[in-house]
Amino acid sequence: MINKVLIANRGEIAVRIIRACREMGIETVAVYSKADETALHVQLADEAVCIGPAVSKDSYLNMENMISATVISGADAIHPGFGFLSENARFAEMCRQCHITFIGPSPELIHKMGNKSEARKTMMEAGVPVVPGTKEPVHTAEEARKMADVMGYPVMIKASSGGGGKGMRISRSPEDFQENFQLAQMESVNSFNDDTMYIEKYIESPRHIEFQILGDAFGHIIHLGERDCSIQRRHQKVLEESPSPAVDDELREKMGRAAVQAARAVGYESAGTIEFLLDKNKNFYFMEMNTRIQVEHPVTEFVTNVDLIKSQIRIAAGEPLNIGQEDIEIKGHAIECRINAENPEKNFQPSPGKIERLHLPGGKGVRVDTAAYAGYEIPPYYDSMIAKLIVLGKSRNEAIKKMKSALSEFIVDGIDTNVDFQMEIMNHPKFQSGDFSTDFIEQMKKEGE
Amino acid sequence: MINKVLIANRGEIAVRIIRACREMGIETVAVYSKADETALHVQLADEAVCIGPAVSKDSYLNMENMISATVISGADAIHPGFGFLSENARFAEMCRQCHITFIGPSPELIHKMGNKSEARKTMMEAGVPVVPGTKEPVHTAEEARKMADVMGYPVMIKASSGGGGKGMRISRSPEDFQENFQLAQMESVNSFNDDTMYIEKYIESPRHIEFQILGDAFGHIIHLGERDCSIQRRHQKVLEESPSPAVDDELREKMGRAAVQAARAVGYESAGTIEFLLDKNKNFYFMEMNTRIQVEHPVTEFVTNVDLIKSQIRIAAGEPLNIGQEDIEIKGHAIECRINAENPEKNFQPSPGKIERLHLPGGKGVRVDTAAYAGYEIPPYYDSMIAKLIVLGKSRNEAIKKMKSALSEFIVDGIDTNVDFQMEIMNHPKFQSGDFSTDFIEQMKKEGE
Repeated sequence: MINKVLIANRGEIAVRIIRACREMGIETVAVYSKADETALHVQLADEAVCIGPAVSKDSYLNMENMISATVISGADAIHPGFGFLSENARFAEMCRQCHITFIGPSPELIHKMGNKSEARKTMMEAGVPVVPGTKEPVHTAEEARKMADVMGYPVMIKASSGGGGKGMRISRSPEDFQENFQLAQMESVNSFNDDTMYIEKYIESPRHIEFQILGDAFGHIIHLGERDCSIQRRHQKVLEESPSPAVDDELREKMGRAAVQAARAVGYESAGTIEFLLDKNKNFYFMEMNTRIQVEHPVTEFVTNVDLIKSQIRIAAGEPLNIGQEDIEIKGHAIECRINAENPEKNFQPSPGKIERLHLPGGKGVRVDTAAYAGYEIPPYYDSMIAKLIVLGKSRNEAIKKMKSALSEFIVDGIDTNVDFQMEIMNHPKFQSGDFSTDFIEQMKKEGE
Repeated sequence: MINKVLIANRGEIAVRIIRACREMGIETVAVYSKADETALHVQLADEAVCIGPAVSKDSYLNMENMISATVISGADAIHPGFGFLSENARFAEMCRQCHITFIGPSPELIHKMGNKSEARKTMMEAGVPVVPGTKEPVHTAEEARKMADVMGYPVMIKASSGGGGKGMRISRSPEDFQENFQLAQMESVNSFNDDTMYIEKYIESPRHIEFQILGDAFGHIIHLGERDCSIQRRHQKVLEESPSPAVDDELREKMGRAAVQAARAVGYESAGTIEFLLDKNKNFYFMEMNTRIQVEHPVTEFVTNVDLIKSQIRIAAGEPLNIGQEDIEIKGHAIECRINAENPEKNFQPSPGKIERLHLPGGKGVRVDTAAYAGYEIPPYYDSMIAKLIVLGKSRNEAIKKMKSALSEFIVDGIDTNVDFQMEIMNHPKFQSGDFSTDFIEQMKKEGE
């Protein structure tokens, strides 16, 4: 059904998608900005099309150019990867109008889940627990504060169009509410040109637990267990693992059922992720649904042995899921460390530049997804992630040991990386104990001071 | 029990063992010849000791230096890897006398299985099928021909002291027997100063099928399924896979039982391999037992998810096997390609030299075991294997596609490699069909002429 895929992305995820296509006998078209002429995904694809200058908005976010490149190259499908246009309903709609298969859910679904307050409403109606909060969006601080007062502090002030931590502020008392609301709203206006806000109960020290979903065009929906993404820095995930040390079989079944229920409520098709907050009393709350592949999908692939990119492609081609819930067995324990070109000593400042020397770890149970190579010049225009190091152990303990061994073999010369920082996390007793929450890194930094 | 392991080897297997030790919290000591000062295993180990000049016999085969290095570094165990001293009973005996744990079976066992005619006799007594042949050595063509006539043609005429293909001739009929016997005997006298010969039934176009065995000090012996190593060039394995396309569940159980029986007959301890020839009628014959880890062990690791190096170390430390036969489940299909620094166009002539650029494949289901890195100068003194590329697919078909994708990403500049040759094998209809025997590469070459 799908013969040629244009990959509307760059970096390691573009390489990952090229590999899946090649294994499926599908031709690939890479796109690249002028800053990415020597990028690995350009070298690995069957064809490559330059789609604009370095700045993302003129290239990787340029929908018209992306569609033109698809038509010119004769590709019949687009894989959006993550970030960039992957959750852009308008782009999915343009694909549909041009009879290009968008490898992901429908524009309507992307739109529905992209609007946080609408998603919340949908989930409440479907009986999926959500964080207590405002049902309708608010626009003024006064209006919002009244609601917060009723809800009880602390509360989270969130931009309706928010994402990536932007337009989010915690208010811990009526006194600091107005200031935080205005800051969050200003950020939202600047970033998303939208002043619509909502207020939620703030869950103290939660864990970020997300469930991987697969749904096909025939209404089959399954989950592939959870990923624990609690180790974050400024709402950016730093490392992820599956299964979560906080989720036992009983809770997995309960949360998994809620995740499938959530996906079913919207008739979900393709790979998607239901993100939950889990509080200290094992209560969980729907946070949001991501209607795309996640950076951290390899940990799920390791423990379930299901290829999520191939699954996405097969579903987009109209094939039914070839596995049922009963076929999903979580085996072993996987951890992923995001390796970024950044300097943890200098407040994680990005460190673009030329990779002079590169030695990647390997061996049993070690997977590296990367687009980096020795001699590659990391451009300063895009995000700083240069590799994902993923390990599989029989137990969490074995996985940690394997990750430590692999990190110690990871050699990058010429730029700064967070390899040592990841090693610090691995060596931290709190991480090793499995008992941590989303404020882990903040607390770790305080200890270091 | 084991705190510090000296690795009496080099190259990728030394790296593989270092990784296993590191994950187990065991310290490592690398040894190296003067030609290997910049080798990766030297960089990765906790300590490194130079044990002599470049030539193997003065370094990696120098038993006295090896023992001295162990004593000086305070290591309590030696892992011999494969090749070099790994099947040297005298070395295992020296270890015992020096109270060093040899990670492998006892010297007596190594000796017993190293003597081909004794191994044969032991297996016959244990009821394990062996290739029909003369029980006692013969010296004259007349005597031998009588035996061959009874056995039925074709037969293999073999020098008792033979090895490396020397003193071996096939006779296909009584008419050509005398000539071939005399040629083989002459070669034997010239090469080994020994006119003692054997006659064996010659198995036409067999497959090389070997079973992985694990046995502990408590008499538990299990097998981990088979590896098909039929793709060979001059008796050297080129690629291996597990499971074998020629072995179904019924045959696996039958051969597996025979393999365990063989190992039990000698009270086998450690990881070992029982090699069989499989004929076109699914008859199998014991060929030999290797009392060490094999190059191709990762294909078994991929489909069983058992770490064979860690298992060897645990067994040597006196721990009981933590898995039973019922825990062994063969899942998926794994293929390994040996990547050699050689030129297939020039009769596979070795191609040592400096690796100018190196890009290794990665991603889901791809494992690379290597000691190569960009800038590394491959010395001319040792074998030409520079990497093992191993893939895991759900099916054989998927594994082949994955291997093709991975081979196409394998970039080595500065030296010649057999990457394209491996790709030719992957693309060959006969290989893809799964219906091939040990003469596959010879036939492939004839087609190319």
